[in-house]
Amino acid sequence: MSIKLTFLGTGDAGGVPLFGCNCSICLQMKKDGIRRSPCSAVISFGSCSFLIDAGRTDLLALFDQYQFKRILLTHYHADHVQGLFHIRWGNPALNIPVHGPVDEQGCADLLKHPGILDFTDQMIPFLCREFNGISITPVPLNHSKLTLGYCFDYKGKRVAYLTDTLGLPLETESFLLSWQPDILILDCSHPPGHAHMRNHNDLMTALCIHNKISPAESWLTHIGHELELYWHAQGIELPSNVFIATDGYQLTVR
Amino acid sequence: MSIKLTFLGTGDAGGVPLFGCNCSICLQMKKDGIRRSPCSAVISFGSCSFLIDAGRTDLLALFDQYQFKRILLTHYHADHVQGLFHIRWGNPALNIPVHGPVDEQGCADLLKHPGILDFTDQMIPFLCREFNGISITPVPLNHSKLTLGYCFDYKGKRVAYLTDTLGLPLETESFLLSWQPDILILDCSHPPGHAHMRNHNDLMTALCIHNKISPAESWLTHIGHELELYWHAQGIELPSNVFIATDGYQLTVR
Repeated sequence: MSIKLTFLGTGDAGGVPLFGCNCSICLQMKKDGIRRSPCSAVISFGSCSFLIDAGRTDLLALFDQYQFKRILLTHYHADHVQGLFHIRWGNPALNIPVHGPVDEQGCADLLKHPGILDFTDQMIPFLCREFNGISITPVPLNHSKLTLGYCFDYKGKRVAYLTDTLGLPLETESFLLSWQPDILILDCSHPPGHAHMRNHNDLMTALCIHNKISPAESWLTHIGHELELYWHAQGIELPSNVFIATDGYQLTVR
Repeated sequence: MSIKLTFLGTGDAGGVPLFGCNCSICLQMKKDGIRRSPCSAVISFGSCSFLIDAGRTDLLALFDQYQFKRILLTHYHADHVQGLFHIRWGNPALNIPVHGPVDEQGCADLLKHPGILDFTDQMIPFLCREFNGISITPVPLNHSKLTLGYCFDYKGKRVAYLTDTLGLPLETESFLLSWQPDILILDCSHPPGHAHMRNHNDLMTALCIHNKISPAESWLTHIGHELELYWHAQGIELPSNVFIATDGYQLTVR
């Protein structure tokens, strides 16, 4: 009766290490072969798995591993959908439901030429849906493009996945306060007081959201190299129930 | 004084093996760990390398290996540019020239948010340019989107790279007849007599072009799984100077 969330990617649009960057953390991670890939995750329950966001471009291998029944998209920025450009031209006998916000433009020609991807069943803010036995409530976020977070409820176990966002819209905050997630997955791209904060949380904003919603645990994702560098340089202490996600890490809510 | 061309990818938009396909060749290649990745190549001369098309999404590793000075784009379909979505957010100190056809729309928000990529110096059909000591003449192709082939001349060694296309426009054919490439790299996506041939050559059309232009060698690329299956099932014989490209294969013109 548990729900599992596996982080497939915990990086921002540029990822860490950043292309061409010689900062100490990028060099160290490159040396160690550690990466933060495009922000994405697997939600698993019963015998079923859904992919959340499709920025990783090795989706063929991931489909082999997880046999995703559906794909959920938070929004249509390239770093969240670029893996779909390729797999849409797969075996025409397949039909893969992809649920995202209503966004007529989509990304490039994805909606115009969907191939084996079925984008027709879109998600409406606060309209709870049940798919394969899990309840999903989409919640609006604050981003430069229409973006949805997803609140998963599987037999009373609750996980909220909230990227990409800067703060939260009031109605989303109200929903979460009453819904009370066990686990909050939260956008946290920038170090505290980042000069050009737009569209993504810095560490202070993420911690404010954590404190307000007060889940059992929060996990920070969509991490940029400046935040990575800040953490390693400053060695800051997070609250005991706030954690930094890493690619491949799996959470279980029992 | 040689010019080298390395095939980084020789697959069509879906690649081979095709996602979710259970045909014998897809299953065999999957088992053997062999792939045809998105169609792309490296052209190398002196101490310099350029990337031709950016559909491979592991460009960070490829940049480390080849230190590309420039990127040439044949056109803005996703399978030829999707690797750029990621690297554009690299170290802001970098500036990577990307030369493609004049296409105001580009792909998704690439041109609107180019990051470290510099798209300003565009290629004009038949306007020969010299970059880092190599001459490049762009030639128009027949495709669903404005598409250019590239004719490279390095100290008299000539390579023409012609994807994606169905046949050739007359003026391109005339140019090639007088220019006389040593090596012709040619779109060949479909088996002979493919029912829905659009935008890409089938084997017969590719061989017609080879016969007409009469280069020393032709290499076929942008290969789909149906053509792959056809070759393996039929065991057809190609002319002795026509070859099927494979990912990773390197040609040298001395």
